[in-house]
Amino acid sequence: MNILCVDTSGPVAGCALTADGRVLHSITALHGRTHSESIMPMVDEALSSSGLAVADLDCIAAVAGPGSFTGVRIGVCLAKGLAHAHDVPCARVDALEALSMNFAGYEGVVAPILDARRHQVYCAAFDVSSGLPHRLLDDDALPIEAFLEKLPADGRIAFLGDGLDVFAPVIKAALGDRAFLAPANLRDIRPETAAVVAAARREAWMPGAQLTPIYLRAPQAERERKARLKQEADA
Amino acid sequence: MNILCVDTSGPVAGCALTADGRVLHSITALHGRTHSESIMPMVDEALSSSGLAVADLDCIAAVAGPGSFTGVRIGVCLAKGLAHAHDVPCARVDALEALSMNFAGYEGVVAPILDARRHQVYCAAFDVSSGLPHRLLDDDALPIEAFLEKLPADGRIAFLGDGLDVFAPVIKAALGDRAFLAPANLRDIRPETAAVVAAARREAWMPGAQLTPIYLRAPQAERERKARLKQEADA
Repeated sequence: MNILCVDTSGPVAGCALTADGRVLHSITALHGRTHSESIMPMVDEALSSSGLAVADLDCIAAVAGPGSFTGVRIGVCLAKGLAHAHDVPCARVDALEALSMNFAGYEGVVAPILDARRHQVYCAAFDVSSGLPHRLLDDDALPIEAFLEKLPADGRIAFLGDGLDVFAPVIKAALGDRAFLAPANLRDIRPETAAVVAAARREAWMPGAQLTPIYLRAPQAERERKARLKQEADA
Repeated sequence: MNILCVDTSGPVAGCALTADGRVLHSITALHGRTHSESIMPMVDEALSSSGLAVADLDCIAAVAGPGSFTGVRIGVCLAKGLAHAHDVPCARVDALEALSMNFAGYEGVVAPILDARRHQVYCAAFDVSSGLPHRLLDDDALPIEAFLEKLPADGRIAFLGDGLDVFAPVIKAALGDRAFLAPANLRDIRPETAAVVAAARREAWMPGAQLTPIYLRAPQAERERKARLKQEADA
């Protein structure tokens, strides 16, 4: 079973190709180029390095969010396009669920947090002790303090994701040694991890036409428009 | 602190570039091409994608084994060459120690095993619950049964590495639910993980001239020569 997975949902662009539970190729880059420029060469490289064509794929997975609005749309649209052209099903991978699998086997709560700006995090919580993600808290966009209050009052909690860049001190102050903060190698979404999640959720594969982003908030432009309309109505 | 890490010690070739605890670029490939062909383009790609030159590196790390004799020498020699040309220190990363960090934060024993052929595994055991590897068993080349006997008699043990491809059934039969077998995304050495280990062992950085492979057994050619000489002496 060959799965191609693309992730452009955050600051890191990534592409992986897995076959029957083996990672054939994986590439990630955190750099200045926009994802729209960098992701397609990654896909080409993953396929050519592995001697596979799009028609050989059983599934094309995209990390569909939550994350950067523009980034999420790039990955989802790329997957839709490739899938449509070759009639391959798609998988819609939740960014927070994929992140949680960096800690597969961890006995405790795994709490992925992504920097959502405006002092919020995209957040969720999972039990991954079995080796597959079992959801404990739904995806949400919350101030970090509100998210920490929703987590269990005892036991060790592993935090990961780029929300750590901003909120690690807040987490440590609130939870002390109960908080385990991911080292650099486990901090970010890895495309092969998202492919493993896609492989485990085969019943949820869908035609590319049905693949949609996962948004937890309205985009900034819509929020600003709403605020402006409200201001005009109040004036 | 910029660290370039190469890994050609096993079936997967990998190269990563990390900067101050961030993974800038990471690429791995499991394919037919020999590592000697595939690794240098990966190094070029990691550097150019990140806008860095060899002279910008603070350390060049190589996964030095245990592993494939030829593979280990390719990675070590590449690191030595790059380091010598630009007077950059090297880090010698133990493959089993790097593997263990795939499970950073895991509370229990982490047991990396690499297929060493001849019904043996390269093996070791670590406690990585603090987020850094604390060694419990030295690197060794053992039959899997002998290794399993050296592990604790209770508690959960996470196994990873390509030894699982061969020995997963033996491990499950011996340990049952006490054994957690790494899913595909955590199974193999990742070059950025080796870079994280190199960053944490700064006191052990060395001039490239001192970088040597980690061998646990004599190479096959030497074993065969020894056996032949013994046979001739006995005749």
